[in-house]
Amino acid sequence: MDYKAAFQTAVEQVRKEGRYRVFADLKRHRGAFPRATWTREDGSEREIVVWCSNDYLGQGQNPVVIEAMHAAIDATGTGSGGTRNISGTTHFHVELEHELADLHGKEAALLFTSGYVSNEATLSTLYKILPGLVVFSDELNHASMISGIRNGGGKRHIYRHNDLAHLEELLLAADPDAPKLIAFESVYSMDGDISDIPGTVALAKKYGAMTYIDEVHAIGMYGPRGGGVAERDGMMAEIDIIEATLGKAFGVMGGYIAADAVIVDAIRSYASGFIFTTSLPPALTAGALASVRYLKAHDELRQQHQERAATLKKMMKDAGLPVMESSVSHIVPVMVGDAVHCKMVSDMLLEDHGVYVQPINYPTVPRGTERLRFTPTPFHTDEMMRDLVGALEKLWAHCNIARLGGRAA
Amino acid sequence: MDYKAAFQTAVEQVRKEGRYRVFADLKRHRGAFPRATWTREDGSEREIVVWCSNDYLGQGQNPVVIEAMHAAIDATGTGSGGTRNISGTTHFHVELEHELADLHGKEAALLFTSGYVSNEATLSTLYKILPGLVVFSDELNHASMISGIRNGGGKRHIYRHNDLAHLEELLLAADPDAPKLIAFESVYSMDGDISDIPGTVALAKKYGAMTYIDEVHAIGMYGPRGGGVAERDGMMAEIDIIEATLGKAFGVMGGYIAADAVIVDAIRSYASGFIFTTSLPPALTAGALASVRYLKAHDELRQQHQERAATLKKMMKDAGLPVMESSVSHIVPVMVGDAVHCKMVSDMLLEDHGVYVQPINYPTVPRGTERLRFTPTPFHTDEMMRDLVGALEKLWAHCNIARLGGRAA
Ligand SMILES: Cc1ncc(COP(=O)(O)O)c(C=O)c1O
Ligand SMILES: Cc1ncc(COP(=O)(O)O)c(C=O)c1O
Repeated sequence: MDYKAAFQTAVEQVRKEGRYRVFADLKRHRGAFPRATWTREDGSEREIVVWCSNDYLGQGQNPVVIEAMHAAIDATGTGSGGTRNISGTTHFHVELEHELADLHGKEAALLFTSGYVSNEATLSTLYKILPGLVVFSDELNHASMISGIRNGGGKRHIYRHNDLAHLEELLLAADPDAPKLIAFESVYSMDGDISDIPGTVALAKKYGAMTYIDEVHAIGMYGPRGGGVAERDGMMAEIDIIEATLGKAFGVMGGYIAADAVIVDAIRSYASGFIFTTSLPPALTAGALASVRYLKAHDELRQQHQERAATLKKMMKDAGLPVMESSVSHIVPVMVGDAVHCKMVSDMLLEDHGVYVQPINYPTVPRGTERLRFTPTPFHTDEMMRDLVGALEKLWAHCNIARLGGRAA
Repeated sequence: MDYKAAFQTAVEQVRKEGRYRVFADLKRHRGAFPRATWTREDGSEREIVVWCSNDYLGQGQNPVVIEAMHAAIDATGTGSGGTRNISGTTHFHVELEHELADLHGKEAALLFTSGYVSNEATLSTLYKILPGLVVFSDELNHASMISGIRNGGGKRHIYRHNDLAHLEELLLAADPDAPKLIAFESVYSMDGDISDIPGTVALAKKYGAMTYIDEVHAIGMYGPRGGGVAERDGMMAEIDIIEATLGKAFGVMGGYIAADAVIVDAIRSYASGFIFTTSLPPALTAGALASVRYLKAHDELRQQHQERAATLKKMMKDAGLPVMESSVSHIVPVMVGDAVHCKMVSDMLLEDHGVYVQPINYPTVPRGTERLRFTPTPFHTDEMMRDLVGALEKLWAHCNIARLGGRAA
């Protein structure tokens, strides 16, 4: 058996499809966000503007968060030293769980090492706790939700993206006595669209299903206290399990769920991905705690954020660039529609214009819908936007990529 | 459908078995390790000695690691702001991967958000890359390895713990043309025993299998540079994939694999748990980098560690306490054999003696083998050990738990 050849073939396949990934080696500079230094493979450097960070509100640079991390390190040291059960629960973990429960108006919250793990561990464990569970899952749900649902090993039905008529069809066809769960996201991060939470909850009630929402790309950014789209829409109390991350708008790392105490207690007691892993370092839980509290109190940052996104979308549309119409959120996706083109444009933006935006390709989005995805923050200035749109205009002309209404040549 | 009742039943089940977990809320104090402050549920506090941390070498308190974390935060901010592919690769990630590859004498290394995720993601992905793969897995392998193997969805055979004759039987019975992988650990953390790496590798060669080793409880602690038991035994070059954590002896958080470049590149390109998650914050990768480098150069810490473990084992055995004979490592497990007893002894140690050691119960170990698991570090003094053994002697008498050779009454 020639193992090496098998690994080589796997990598070659990715190359052939034009979606081999080269990670940009970046140095962020505190206080200078979204500027950073990019190190090329030959070791040379270039100053760039980051246009694809999920540190949506620049909290990764907020002195309040930075200070909280420093203080936690000075107080307690670097790591937690154990799983949550075996010496790895620090006072910061306990406080943060209380704070997150409060943010969502729930009885309890449970931390995981990442948003990915929170989805995978919770969804797969629900199948164990609710025998015969049927999950109804939006077709564009994130890979971590799909993993959790698959790994649960039970029944699942995929409904067309945001298509509540299709969801109802599937609910209607399912065994009325089986336990059911509808799993969906609020903001879909690659299309920028937002799901219909009241409509989904109404269906859940009608058919006796539980609801599970991923607010990873909304948390901190929507709702008067940053509780997400469910807060904005007044729906938090109607959702059974809210999942989100500490790694995007909160600017740190980690994930969590918030729900009734008994749900949290059951997941805490059964989920392998929660139990068998070193807990988050105190510095991260302390930083996240400061960040959650800060964003609860600073709605103006959310307003600036929305303004920046609207301005960039308008500038791009005025220039005839194919901003995806789907986006009603802070995410600005621009369609390219071809993996090789997408990578080429992204490389030229970086090398020639100091614009860093990663090409988004399969498996992150379906083949043929490759795109550039811009995430303006409150720290992206008008000037940066003009530079960006100017660069895109040049490249679009140069590369003969279709403008609004068409596809790449 | 009464969902609440289903969750309640699940939690009740755990309570009934006497293995409901209450996490001890701890405040570590920098510089005072292994001392800490425990906060009771009523808010009152007690000073304790931590006897069950996996910060095996106290690196969580090492000024070199602490300084590296502070410096990274000051240089770059708090989080990475993205997945590895989308703006989340910092210079520290790149450097740390080089350092870990060097530690294991491999061409490349790949970081994950935790050891759990590194096992789950890598093992499940190997099934995709090697169609028809059959995995041979030691029965005591960690939950994260089991998850990865299960989620891979392919063929697997479980061999009796450390039983190479049984492993050979299974290898012999398998399709000679199928790709094969033997997955095992070096130090088994609940029994403290160490696997036979040369023997396992010899079988792998004989039957054309790849090898995958989890060095999570050995990394930093064995081998002249802390490369693990495979380094100590001169076997690193013979193992195809080495997996370990940054969260135990290195004192921070995160996980990784080290292997041939093409293997790493394939896992990097296909593993969902690697691709779709926010990368480790620069502070953690910088801290881990400092920790790896420090432990490479400080073999004396490993020697002190082994001395402390040997001393504690001897003191316990002299006192007639049932130290598990299996342990030939730094881990000191003491058998209790019953979930309720185990929890009771642990509670009394904490409340009456300021000794914090978590009861180890199902699902971490098989039912009926509940135990206390002590992890002495170079910072546990003779006096702390005398206090501990004294407390255990009292409780063993009080609770009528069997001494060496017997079981609990
Ligand atoms: C919708 C969604 N859910 C979950 C995650 C995972 O969160 P984390 O990055 O904290 O692992 C991501 C992206 O990373 C995501 O886009
Ligand atoms: C053998 C083994 N492998 C992997 C892990 C997971 O590593 P991490 O804590 O970094 O997730 C653990 C424990 O946590 C373990 O004991």
